[in-house]
Amino acid sequence: MVWDAWGVPAGHTPLPEQIRGLLGQVFGVSGEPAIRRDEGDVPLRPPVLSADRRAGLARVVGEQHLSTAHIARLRHAGGKSTLDLLRRRAIGPQDAPDAVVYPADHAQVADVLAYCSEQGIAVVPFGGGTSVVGGLDPVRGRFETVIALDLRRLDALLDCDPVSGTATFGAGVTGPRAEELLAAHGLSLGHFPQSFEFASIGGFAATRSSGQASAGYGRFDDMVQRLRVATPAGTVELGRAPASAAGPDLRELFVGSEGSLGVITEVTVRVHPVPETTDHMAWSFPDFAAGAAALRAVVQAGAAPTVLRLSDEAETGLNLARSKDVGGAPVSGCLAVTTFEGSAAHVAARSAEAADLLRAAGGTELGPDPARAWEHGRFAAPYLRDALLDAGVLCETLETATTWNRLAELKTQVTTALTESLTAQGTPALVMGHISHTYPTGASLYFTVVAKLLDDPITQWLTAKQAAGDAIAAAGATITHHHAVGADHRRWLPDEIGELGVRVLRAVKHEIDPAGILNPGTLLP
Amino acid sequence: MVWDAWGVPAGHTPLPEQIRGLLGQVFGVSGEPAIRRDEGDVPLRPPVLSADRRAGLARVVGEQHLSTAHIARLRHAGGKSTLDLLRRRAIGPQDAPDAVVYPADHAQVADVLAYCSEQGIAVVPFGGGTSVVGGLDPVRGRFETVIALDLRRLDALLDCDPVSGTATFGAGVTGPRAEELLAAHGLSLGHFPQSFEFASIGGFAATRSSGQASAGYGRFDDMVQRLRVATPAGTVELGRAPASAAGPDLRELFVGSEGSLGVITEVTVRVHPVPETTDHMAWSFPDFAAGAAALRAVVQAGAAPTVLRLSDEAETGLNLARSKDVGGAPVSGCLAVTTFEGSAAHVAARSAEAADLLRAAGGTELGPDPARAWEHGRFAAPYLRDALLDAGVLCETLETATTWNRLAELKTQVTTALTESLTAQGTPALVMGHISHTYPTGASLYFTVVAKLLDDPITQWLTAKQAAGDAIAAAGATITHHHAVGADHRRWLPDEIGELGVRVLRAVKHEIDPAGILNPGTLLP
Repeated sequence: MVWDAWGVPAGHTPLPEQIRGLLGQVFGVSGEPAIRRDEGDVPLRPPVLSADRRAGLARVVGEQHLSTAHIARLRHAGGKSTLDLLRRRAIGPQDAPDAVVYPADHAQVADVLAYCSEQGIAVVPFGGGTSVVGGLDPVRGRFETVIALDLRRLDALLDCDPVSGTATFGAGVTGPRAEELLAAHGLSLGHFPQSFEFASIGGFAATRSSGQASAGYGRFDDMVQRLRVATPAGTVELGRAPASAAGPDLRELFVGSEGSLGVITEVTVRVHPVPETTDHMAWSFPDFAAGAAALRAVVQAGAAPTVLRLSDEAETGLNLARSKDVGGAPVSGCLAVTTFEGSAAHVAARSAEAADLLRAAGGTELGPDPARAWEHGRFAAPYLRDALLDAGVLCETLETATTWNRLAELKTQVTTALTESLTAQGTPALVMGHISHTYPTGASLYFTVVAKLLDDPITQWLTAKQAAGDAIAAAGATITHHHAVGADHRRWLPDEIGELGVRVLRAVKHEIDPAGILNPGTLLP
Repeated sequence: MVWDAWGVPAGHTPLPEQIRGLLGQVFGVSGEPAIRRDEGDVPLRPPVLSADRRAGLARVVGEQHLSTAHIARLRHAGGKSTLDLLRRRAIGPQDAPDAVVYPADHAQVADVLAYCSEQGIAVVPFGGGTSVVGGLDPVRGRFETVIALDLRRLDALLDCDPVSGTATFGAGVTGPRAEELLAAHGLSLGHFPQSFEFASIGGFAATRSSGQASAGYGRFDDMVQRLRVATPAGTVELGRAPASAAGPDLRELFVGSEGSLGVITEVTVRVHPVPETTDHMAWSFPDFAAGAAALRAVVQAGAAPTVLRLSDEAETGLNLARSKDVGGAPVSGCLAVTTFEGSAAHVAARSAEAADLLRAAGGTELGPDPARAWEHGRFAAPYLRDALLDAGVLCETLETATTWNRLAELKTQVTTALTESLTAQGTPALVMGHISHTYPTGASLYFTVVAKLLDDPITQWLTAKQAAGDAIAAAGATITHHHAVGADHRRWLPDEIGELGVRVLRAVKHEIDPAGILNPGTLLP
């Protein structure tokens, strides 16, 4: 990935003319991109790694799989939130891990952790590098040295059982590679978060990722059948059956542990045959409330869509759901997208049931094209975010989830908190939202915020984020539906799980990681 | 419940003539019921509860809600496994809790735990009393006194949200009462384990219960949205949204903790509208392998049955799936049952899709009657078990789960282990099985074992159970799919979650329950 932005260079294109015009009207910026630094010119904090320790780590992974090079360190300096990029682009020396190690397999991961635990070296597990919550910050904690543990070499499909519909991956396998490896067996995972192109299987598990097809295939934590985890206290393998009553489910401690309780090295996931057919349909609703009620009807009836999402009026109006048309002719109402996958008969029955429910709830069919356009552009939004940033415009996202009965109120509360915070700081703000993950009892809410970059954009966003997070916590909703806790949400964890919950997590961490080397900057407040 | 058997007196009927004949042929027993003792005549270990402590507990719950009476102690002396009943019926003094306390609400539960933690009194949380794994054994651990904490007074529907489809129950609400309370709102929970008539909401959560409609409505752990748990270290409330990425899911530590980490006092569960219609259908398959493949096809296609089960040849032959016909004319092949619930259109589409798959896999439709007969008698099996026991015949069940590709081999391994163990001990054995819970990646296996009661029936069953459990562990399957760990499965927990997993659970317990008062006889080895 590009060091100071999302993705690959080819994904970065100039802002379309109509967006530049819009930015000029709303924020008074020209839309001219800023000049960006070359990664070779970025000053880094000097590495702190003694020759002995360097040799010790090299003994585990091999000299050629350990790097203290400038570029390697810089590219492991953090994740890809707007805050990360603002920090990356700031003048002055960047913080970065002191070294990057690339273990070959579970045994080497376990040995690295044992060595670092004994030596007192902080370890930040690193998958695709796509965290947007500060989960990859190179935090040393009480240690002088921090290394990034890059899992890209754990890149194999280790086992595949088409009868049971399971596959075991090394943690470093990326989304596209997982699909490619499975396709050779006629199978698919069906996990398509916005980070799909770069993020890894281990990262999906460690952060409780949720993909755009979660209505059909579940969240990633639902997909996980078995985990192998290396910890400073040894290895744990969890998950012996599709379901079990053998006490607490310890998988659920390691799933979502964000590298703070161990390094997930292998994940067995539920997979399914590549679907025979996919049906796309777009719908328009007069307003967000009507659309949300329609989605609720579909998911509560068990009509079983694969994708089910709804953009609010603002997002629909700006056409953000169809990236190539962003800023084009305004669209009224609220756009919803459904897809259905499976055999032709299965898809026909489900889509007919859902269509009846959506129509009864006030929806109008727009045909498949807007749904296909959404699907086509669905991984592009982070590039647009980067182009806005280049043009002096802040763009960031945050998300939460709550029960259906509280969804509308929560949306208003978060929108108000963000708008008031940014306005008070001296910039207009556009706050847009969508529902992208639905459950019988509730749904996620995903917000996109656009504002003018002020003189101190880091403080600007931290202030707005604090207001939004406080609104979410006050409403009793979750501080994150699929982005994880990382560094950015730690302050709200006691609200989420209580002080006793935090104590339980600390007790588990102390048992597993008594030296406290594992990702000291994340999860626990 | 009856002190030395399942259920209510009215449920107990003599063995049908045709079964007595069968027992005579196979086991050489007459089928004459043994005389059972009156509960007033059973000698109990004298209670150990000082006057001070009695007064201390009475201060929390009120004098009238604390009992040291013989009958109260005896009825809280354990669960309802065959082993429990054999022990209950043995000559000599019975062990029993020293007192039974009946708190009114969460606050009183918390206060009881605080008092017992300070005083060093072991506490066995008690819901419906239906454990079949020794989860209610009145074990004192290192304390001289053990009390049963009976949650029956926590019997309210505390909140109901028909929009989100959630309901919050006190832990003591029983299965039928939950359905009754929800029916007033047009809602249903749809959790129908065999213990349904007596077991409680808190018990369902504490043991990871799974009901017969799990294909449609999920296991109980899937249904849980929010928990309130009283512990000696304070109260924890978990579950803020339908789904969250806010770190490890601590609900999954308390769900399945079997009273060893806290007392679940309130549970918010997913509910659904009372279905418009239910479609019943029975199927016959030539053999178990064909039937299992057919069930797999249905669940992997997402055809979404509500109930999906398959009896093996032995169970089908004895008609155990239809309790009123047990021992009647033998039936060949393997019986499968499906039900579908929802709107008429929803049910029609799903049942048609499933029927196509079942037919393609070699199934023959038998019409709805055998499925309705199964449903009608589905809570009766424990009464039949008791009648067999009265007649000198051992009858017990055990269960596991594994992936589809290992199901047939596991079934053979467990059947062989049970048969060989019992035969070696000097009795023929009938081992029957069924699949009653299905998942895209695998299924449960439920075994019913019938043998002649030998002179030392407790050792007889412990020996057979050990053989079956070892076979399950050696196969890498789970030691329990929905019965929980209790006392009976503790020895296999290190196989299941590893030594490090056990250490993690101990660390959590030490943090929450430093005195170790909570259910010392269960879960942790």
